[in-house]
Order: sequence, then C-alpha cells, then structure tokens
Amino acid sequence: MRLSRREFSKMGAYGLAAQMLPASAMKAQESGRKIGYCVIGIGRIADHFLRGVEQSSYAKITGFVSGHRDKAERFAAQYGVPASSIYSYEDMDRMRDNKEIDAVYVALPNNMHAEYTIRSAKAGKHVLCEKPMSTTVSDAEAMIAACKAANVKLMIAYRLHYEPLNLKAIQLIRDGALGQVQSINGAFGFNCGAGEWRLTKQYGGGGSLFDVGIYVLNACRYLTGEEPVKFTGVTSTITHDGRFNEVDENVSWTLKFPSGILATGSSTYGATMPGYFKVYGTKGWLGMDPAYNYDGLRLRASYAGAKGAPRIELDEANPERDPKQFAREADHLAECILNNKTPTSPGEEGLRDMRYIQAIYKTAGVEVA
Amino acid sequence: MRLSRREFSKMGAYGLAAQMLPASAMKAQESGRKIGYCVIGIGRIADHFLRGVEQSSYAKITGFVSGHRDKAERFAAQYGVPASSIYSYEDMDRMRDNKEIDAVYVALPNNMHAEYTIRSAKAGKHVLCEKPMSTTVSDAEAMIAACKAANVKLMIAYRLHYEPLNLKAIQLIRDGALGQVQSINGAFGFNCGAGEWRLTKQYGGGGSLFDVGIYVLNACRYLTGEEPVKFTGVTSTITHDGRFNEVDENVSWTLKFPSGILATGSSTYGATMPGYFKVYGTKGWLGMDPAYNYDGLRLRASYAGAKGAPRIELDEANPERDPKQFAREADHLAECILNNKTPTSPGEEGLRDMRYIQAIYKTAGVEVA
Repeated sequence: MRLSRREFSKMGAYGLAAQMLPASAMKAQESGRKIGYCVIGIGRIADHFLRGVEQSSYAKITGFVSGHRDKAERFAAQYGVPASSIYSYEDMDRMRDNKEIDAVYVALPNNMHAEYTIRSAKAGKHVLCEKPMSTTVSDAEAMIAACKAANVKLMIAYRLHYEPLNLKAIQLIRDGALGQVQSINGAFGFNCGAGEWRLTKQYGGGGSLFDVGIYVLNACRYLTGEEPVKFTGVTSTITHDGRFNEVDENVSWTLKFPSGILATGSSTYGATMPGYFKVYGTKGWLGMDPAYNYDGLRLRASYAGAKGAPRIELDEANPERDPKQFAREADHLAECILNNKTPTSPGEEGLRDMRYIQAIYKTAGVEVA
Repeated sequence: MRLSRREFSKMGAYGLAAQMLPASAMKAQESGRKIGYCVIGIGRIADHFLRGVEQSSYAKITGFVSGHRDKAERFAAQYGVPASSIYSYEDMDRMRDNKEIDAVYVALPNNMHAEYTIRSAKAGKHVLCEKPMSTTVSDAEAMIAACKAANVKLMIAYRLHYEPLNLKAIQLIRDGALGQVQSINGAFGFNCGAGEWRLTKQYGGGGSLFDVGIYVLNACRYLTGEEPVKFTGVTSTITHDGRFNEVDENVSWTLKFPSGILATGSSTYGATMPGYFKVYGTKGWLGMDPAYNYDGLRLRASYAGAKGAPRIELDEANPERDPKQFAREADHLAECILNNKTPTSPGEEGLRDMRYIQAIYKTAGVEVA
C-alpha cells in the first residue's frame, strides 16, 4: 500500500514539470529551433547555467558579456560561440544586431541586474535575470517597464518554481492533503567568506535576506499561494571581523498572509544554516530539507488519509543532479519565447519579493533604498 | 573514529543527568528516605507523573487532592495511599498536619496553579508546579513570594531541563561545538479538540504559547543561556468552528538575545506541528526533532571537527520511554528537598517565561493580563 502510493506520488511529481507546458513544448520540439542565450557575467552561477543549457532541450549558448576577454574566449570556444559574439560591458548594446542572440542571462551582482536587464531589453533581447531581481523597488519597476516597452519577456530565475519536489509540495497543499495550512517555518543561510560582493551594501543591496533569505520568503508565497500583508523583522551582527560593516549578519522575520497563515523565516551570512521549510496544516504537515539546494532535495510529509485509511507518510528525494534546475529554467523561458507565453516567474514576481524584503528590513529598523 | 566518538558522546549525555547531583544524590540514597508527593488534580498529566514516580528513586505518592472522590480513591488504592490522605479542593489545607506529605505536584489548569501553589506553601509543603507557572506575571510573583515566606521549595515542571538529549544539546553548544550560535528556529503545537480548558482565556491564560509554545521559548533560553531582550509577535485565527472564540489559533514570534542571537518560534492549537528546534552556529548546526515529546527524542548535529579532522555528524536517540522524564523531575525536587538545594528550574524560571509570553502577545496586539 505504502510503496504503491509512493510510486504513484513519484510519477505525479515528475509529471508535474512536464505537464506545465505540454502542448507548447511539443510545438517547440516540432520547430526544432533553439533559443540562443548570451550570458552576462561569467561567475559561479553562470557556470551552473552554462552546464544547464547543455542539458536543455530548447536553449543554446550564443554569446558572452564579460569584463575578462580571456575568460570569455575560453568559454566561447567551449560552447562554439564565435569571437564576434563576445562583448564587453561597454559595447554589449551592439548585440542588438546579433540575430543568434534571442535572450540574455543576467548573472551579475544584484545591483547591476537593473542596468543590464534594461540595456538588454533596449537591444531587443528577452531577459532571464537572477534573483534578487534588484536591490531597490524602483529598479525592479524600471526593469519591468523597460521590458514591456521593448516587448521582450522578463523572467526572474526562481529555480524552484520549476523543480519537481517543490512543485509536488505545492500540489499536495493545493489538493488539500494537509487540510487548511496554518503555519510555515523556514531558513536558509551560510557562513560567507570575507571579500564577497554580497557583503557590500552597494552590490548586495543589504543583508542575507536579499541573497538567500529570499528563497524562504518566496517559498512561503508559493506554498500558500498568497501575498503577505503583515511583517516583522529583526537583525543582528555578532561577528566583528570586518565582514559585517555594511550588511547585517543575521535576520529573522514573521509574515502574516490574508487567510491568517503565519510564517517565520531566518537567514544569515554568519552560520551554517541548511535550507528547509516546514508547512503545518489541520490534517498534517510536510517539509523539505534540503529545500533550496541545486540538488539532493528531499520532501517528507505526514497527513491523514481518507476516512478509515492509514495515515500517509511520504519520504521522497529528487534524484536529479545539478545543473538540471538550470536546464529547466533555461528551457522555460526558451519555450515561452517560442510560443509567446508569459513566464511562470515574471518580473512582477521579483518585484513582490523586493517589496517584502524592504518591508521586513524596515520593521527591523534597517535603512533600505 | 566516528563510532568511538558517538560512543563517547552517548556516555557523556547519559552521564550529564547523573552528574547534576552526584554527591547529594548519594546522601539521599544513604538516608533511604523518600519524599512523599500529594498530587493535586488527577488529569492526563498527573497520570504520567504517577507512573513516573513508580520509576523514581527518591519519590513516592502519599496523597491526592481531587474534586472526584471516587477517582481519588481508585488511585489511592493503587498507590497504597490511605483514605485519610485524600483531600477535596475545599479541605486540602488540612494536609498541613499530614507528615507523610512533603510536597505537592500541581497538575491543574493553568489559572489554578497560583492558588494551589500558595495554599500548599501555606500548608508547609514544597511545590512542583506544572508549566506554564501561571496565567499572569503577578500570579507568578505571588507564588514565588508565598513559597519564600513559607520556606518551601518551588520547582516548575520543565521536564526537558532534566532530559539527557536536551542537556547534551546544551552541552555541545557550551563546549563550542557549533562555534558562535547565531540563530535558532523552533515550533510546537497540535490540533486541539473542542471543549478543552486550554481553549478558554480563563483557564489557559491565552493561546497556545502558554501551553506548548512555551517549550520553544524555554528551549531558546536554555540553548543560548541568555534572556531575550527584544520581541515581535503575530497571531491569527483561521478556523471559525467555535474553538477559537477566546484564544488565538496560531502565534509566531521572534526573539533577540543580548549577544545578538536571533530566534523564531511558532505554535498552534489548530495544526499538526511536531516539536523541534534547530540551532545554527559559525561552525555547524544541531537540532532536535522530536525535541519536546514525552519520549522518542532525537538529536542530530553536524559541525567542524578539529583541524584536519573530518566533520562530526551526530544522530542520537534517547531510548528512554515515557514516564522516565516525570521520574527525573520527581527525583530532582525530592533530592533538592533532602539536601536543601535550589531546583534547577525554580519559580524564577517560570516567571521569566511568563514575562516573555506577555511581551510576545503584547507586540502582537493581543490583550494580556
């Protein structure tokens, strides 16, 4: 009984991502056309994206923007990109004339997302922009406006909106497995090395909530399907070794949603804090731990079965390995472009998180832009 | 290497409780005397306590106070207590003359803790009082004053102050295994049936924070060894089936400690919410899940080893079964009485939680006494 149910649920989970775009995906496949991405900023996360595109169905790499020509040339050679499709930050606007480039992947420090999204939009390119969307609400609004004006798509790279186990958690909740959800807890953080751009107010925008806490905040929103209306926040810095001169080391917060669902969240740049969430409902609970990593995600749940049936206990891992999540998001925007659809995580989704991050820091007494 | 370390740590954990009172415990053993407890209120938790005393070393049952004479007589017969040591709520003050009764165990609804603690103190009896200590700060203060005036000991029944795995978690933190602790998360709650006294403001004092959230709050204090100085709270009621006319269904909060450690907590009377805590430090994390149950507790930890040594991964269960935790607390107060020591969880400990519960509800905009 339990095994067959597990098997069933596993099928359900991995079916979900496929079900998201069945007809349109087929159209894309028929056309045989792949969307060409130009990667802007060749850092750690760009490397995941590049490897993800190798596993994608509808995406290919067709350009690079980098301040390091040597590095860009090495990657260009690896991905079969001609030297003429390598740009500097200064001359990247020339990509307007490059028909091989359909879209860009903005993988720069947070505060540069706005400028390079807007310039890409003006060059007529669709945009896949890393989270957090920006460092200020006004930047986020300008990005949305620029993409709208240029009639290009804007997708924020919320990997987990396309990850089967997170999608399964959402589906279980929507299907009422937990009854009425009442409360959610989550956390995500890490002990950040000195010298990283994310430790500066200018590049990072603020503390760890911008960078990693955003996963917990965003999860609370996709798990409830609601937008929070009440916020409390508290911050602290314990370690005085120079890393936290500009941004807080720790931040914790509460959210209240319109239905009355409450949530707590924590993030940090100063401790080992594996990412998780737990969702509590009238009929049971579910949780993911790890919830936000590039791979190794695990979902557990325990909830009342049908009348007279035994309690249902789930324990499921997503066996997919990094960079599969990046392949999924590269494919999602590609498929939206090919079939003229709006991405599941558009600019407006990123803007909402920006507003909530600012609200949390504001209640914590932290100056925000 | 890992195995031997586990073995070592296991010895350490179960040694801790024994180490707490080694010399004095020996004295008690030598005297052969057992402390006689009179149980006030024969409800669900009293049943755990009665069975716990059967497993204790220095405690025995010598009296009952109950509104149900029949029920009291059945229990009295079972525990070899003479009918003359059964009292009603009205005439319990007569226990002053009963030399077989050294102490009372107050297992009544929250709002009655103060009256029966104070009357017991005036009758010259030591008091083991269930948590929460009271429903108001002023009641808690009056209880402490009454016990002081009567020169009797007052212990609040914080079971987990005497539970080996919780003690081991504390010890690991104090020993610096996690480095500097930065952040803590925890939750505990349950879906409460209709008609329970805890759903009334009068008997319960307020929402689930008084009853079950207090475990999370108290854990944050014993894990950090600090007293919180900043509070935020938020409450909600989603279910409108009559259960939550007087108290909130859900409550979540944040705490800030003087060192800068942040904590989040959640509790509920409206959802399945298994009790846990997670502690995040600069060198690693530890967590208990379950953390607060009568048995089945489990501790996991992952933290950096000595330089060059592999990371240490702990996963340990406490094999003791209910009602062992109750035996430990019965023995602790007994031993304190026999050796004239102050309990590890005296009235002042309960008073602090009362103040913090009130502070959390106050910031949430909930009226508190």
